[in-house]
Amino acid sequence: MPAETDPTKLMKQQVGKAAADRVVSGSIVGLGTGSTAAYMIEFLGEKLKSGELKDIKGIPTSFQGTVLAKQYGIPLTTLDEADRIDIAIDGADEVDPQKNLIKGGGAAHTQEKIVDCLAETFIVVVDSSKLVDKLGTTFLLPVEVIPMAIAPVMRKIEALGGQPTLRMGVKKAGPVVTDNGNLIVDVKFDQGIDDPAGLDTILNNIPGVLENGLFVGVTDTVLIGEIVDGTPIVREL
Amino acid sequence: MPAETDPTKLMKQQVGKAAADRVVSGSIVGLGTGSTAAYMIEFLGEKLKSGELKDIKGIPTSFQGTVLAKQYGIPLTTLDEADRIDIAIDGADEVDPQKNLIKGGGAAHTQEKIVDCLAETFIVVVDSSKLVDKLGTTFLLPVEVIPMAIAPVMRKIEALGGQPTLRMGVKKAGPVVTDNGNLIVDVKFDQGIDDPAGLDTILNNIPGVLENGLFVGVTDTVLIGEIVDGTPIVREL
Repeated sequence: MPAETDPTKLMKQQVGKAAADRVVSGSIVGLGTGSTAAYMIEFLGEKLKSGELKDIKGIPTSFQGTVLAKQYGIPLTTLDEADRIDIAIDGADEVDPQKNLIKGGGAAHTQEKIVDCLAETFIVVVDSSKLVDKLGTTFLLPVEVIPMAIAPVMRKIEALGGQPTLRMGVKKAGPVVTDNGNLIVDVKFDQGIDDPAGLDTILNNIPGVLENGLFVGVTDTVLIGEIVDGTPIVREL
Repeated sequence: MPAETDPTKLMKQQVGKAAADRVVSGSIVGLGTGSTAAYMIEFLGEKLKSGELKDIKGIPTSFQGTVLAKQYGIPLTTLDEADRIDIAIDGADEVDPQKNLIKGGGAAHTQEKIVDCLAETFIVVVDSSKLVDKLGTTFLLPVEVIPMAIAPVMRKIEALGGQPTLRMGVKKAGPVVTDNGNLIVDVKFDQGIDDPAGLDTILNNIPGVLENGLFVGVTDTVLIGEIVDGTPIVREL
């Protein structure tokens, strides 16, 4: 890996390495999405190449993870073949003090939720800008909805006090379509989200909702990168 | 409609008519699936033709409903256009004494749940063979799952005490694929389902599950057809 001089990139690299260091030989690893997770995948590949790690298999949470894993020589498997996931490492859009998350900026939170919730150990890698006192205060909550139900689901979300917006495509006319063929509604809650566990259950029980971006009680460890006095450090929550 | 002589068909016809009689002019009507619902759609068409009903619009819960509505001249609308559903009429695979249902024999329960749960009034049309003391005792519970999650969802259902089977296609190699592009797992519970509301919530919160076939607290009225002393009758629950 070429030596990095940009402090932000250096920080993400260090968080990625700290996460890769948690993986032991013989593990099935959930490979997350995002710029920090990308460094983690790169480090895993280097450790396999050097022989420091052996017999790793990856299960990606997105197309990005698949591409990077192939690029860095990490053998892949699927949820149909693997009977467990030992450790998953993934990014997040918001992290609260209870280690609850909002994810879904990349419209992949359904796949991420399937993989991350299955993992024996789930490690989140973020920079400190993602830390919030209360979820929903800096990032909108993504909800994946099947196309025919989009109008009634948006009305239902309004009745719950949220302001839903259909996520529109960039370099694609019309709305974003997920890898599952569905649409994404981004929901603003003016005062943030008071009860993430309750809202998670309520949203998932609206007919036509596949998954929402709340990850409640799933995270074991958060590795946080930050720059202190110009020096990147990694701390743990 | 040609005069029917077969008692079972005559019974279904009478239930379908009783349901159609609940629809008033100006209504937006959820048009359900199944052999009894088909008679209801036919009667609605006749009432529109005769002028007894005016300004009905239908929202079908399945391809079958769409075809029948067109055949019998019922104008259709969509959930994007309509801001409400006044009444929905649909079949069921099991009905318990609390009017809770199992649906999904036709793999359309997600669309049915979206439409039926939205309706101001939801009427179920069945013959008496669908009545059970406890849900899950005569019919397996269908669960719609996105393809990548099928193996972990089946393991999770086993951990809940269910016996899941992937629904296989007929006149189609491999599994049944729903109108939403997903798979169906049919779940057997040896002692039936003790807590339908609790199970509904648990299943919908498994990552990768779209909807399950439990309809809890949704039904307003059940119209039941049965044959007593060779004569078809309709009674109400």
